[in-house]
Amino acid sequence: MTVPDLEFWFEFGSTYSYLTACRIEDVAHIAGVAVSWRPFLLGPIFKEQGWDDSPFNVYPAKGRYMWRDMERLCAKYGVPFARPSRFPRDGLLAARVACLANAEFEPWLPDFVRAVFRANFAEDREIGDDVEIRSILDELGQPGVEIVERAQTPENKQRLRNHTQRAIELGIFGAPSFVVSGELFWGNDRVEDALAWHRAKTGT
Amino acid sequence: MTVPDLEFWFEFGSTYSYLTACRIEDVAHIAGVAVSWRPFLLGPIFKEQGWDDSPFNVYPAKGRYMWRDMERLCAKYGVPFARPSRFPRDGLLAARVACLANAEFEPWLPDFVRAVFRANFAEDREIGDDVEIRSILDELGQPGVEIVERAQTPENKQRLRNHTQRAIELGIFGAPSFVVSGELFWGNDRVEDALAWHRAKTGT
Repeated sequence: MTVPDLEFWFEFGSTYSYLTACRIEDVAHIAGVAVSWRPFLLGPIFKEQGWDDSPFNVYPAKGRYMWRDMERLCAKYGVPFARPSRFPRDGLLAARVACLANAEFEPWLPDFVRAVFRANFAEDREIGDDVEIRSILDELGQPGVEIVERAQTPENKQRLRNHTQRAIELGIFGAPSFVVSGELFWGNDRVEDALAWHRAKTGT
Repeated sequence: MTVPDLEFWFEFGSTYSYLTACRIEDVAHIAGVAVSWRPFLLGPIFKEQGWDDSPFNVYPAKGRYMWRDMERLCAKYGVPFARPSRFPRDGLLAARVACLANAEFEPWLPDFVRAVFRANFAEDREIGDDVEIRSILDELGQPGVEIVERAQTPENKQRLRNHTQRAIELGIFGAPSFVVSGELFWGNDRVEDALAWHRAKTGT
């Protein structure tokens, strides 16, 4: 029997996805579970729900709470945090790069994802800009100019659209989300439940 | 120094409030923290956000997920669950009774709250009906007819309005919510964080 991965569905504009990106490899490693990194876009999903902005901006009380909650949780996990001057930032290019890395089994994918999240939520950098994404790739020892170019081919753009379409088919409506053997879990606070589900299903 | 209570803000129509009602006394007892039971209504708060129904009905993908999540969590906590044939049910009368019991320091308040939640989410009973609320009170050895009558005086109706107004002032936008020394936590999965906050603030 093939042991399923834990699918980690994330969006670069999502605050709680940042928390999970920082800790998922550690907790999954302890549980002996491999992680599949699945970038997607929340924008098209939110649009279907009638929002043209983050629900944290649409509903101010929810937004105020989320920023305070993030402060507390980042302190709890020991993750650096500074409320970004713009929210949400456009994660399109970063998600395309992540899709390319995913398709090509690049081992730098998790480091890239964490570096982009950190740039957004700890360093207040404009992750929607090509120059920032290239610079993050360069810092990882990767050819930023070349990868950003290859991330924007029609073929790779279609990959990201396919990911987002697949997320919708899985019933995903927010980020982060986790899928284990078709079972959906939503929210950073469900990582442990998703791993427990994996354990129960595989008998490990 | 007065040790603050953990304020548990709940709404009888809220699925996740049911989960918390079933477990909060146990976890708070272990932490040595007293619980203040604070009924309020989500309806007026949702209305301000532009919803005239539960967000789990307004956003179907979110609703499908919530019901599945409830099944899993009830199994995890060992709490009985049967998806109610009507959702959300009107918790107005039950909340008024809970307000009265709260104002009069009635020791049966937690049992009443749990019985109403169980009626709604495990027994598929119409908790919006006077007859069900009277019957729940009678089963607890309380005079149902009398209490339901006293719950509907103008003075007690105002109590519930005051509770809901206070919830809004505290920044509450969903249920369950917890307040410890003015610090707000939202969601059944934040009970442990709220208790840890209490511990950090009181040095116990």
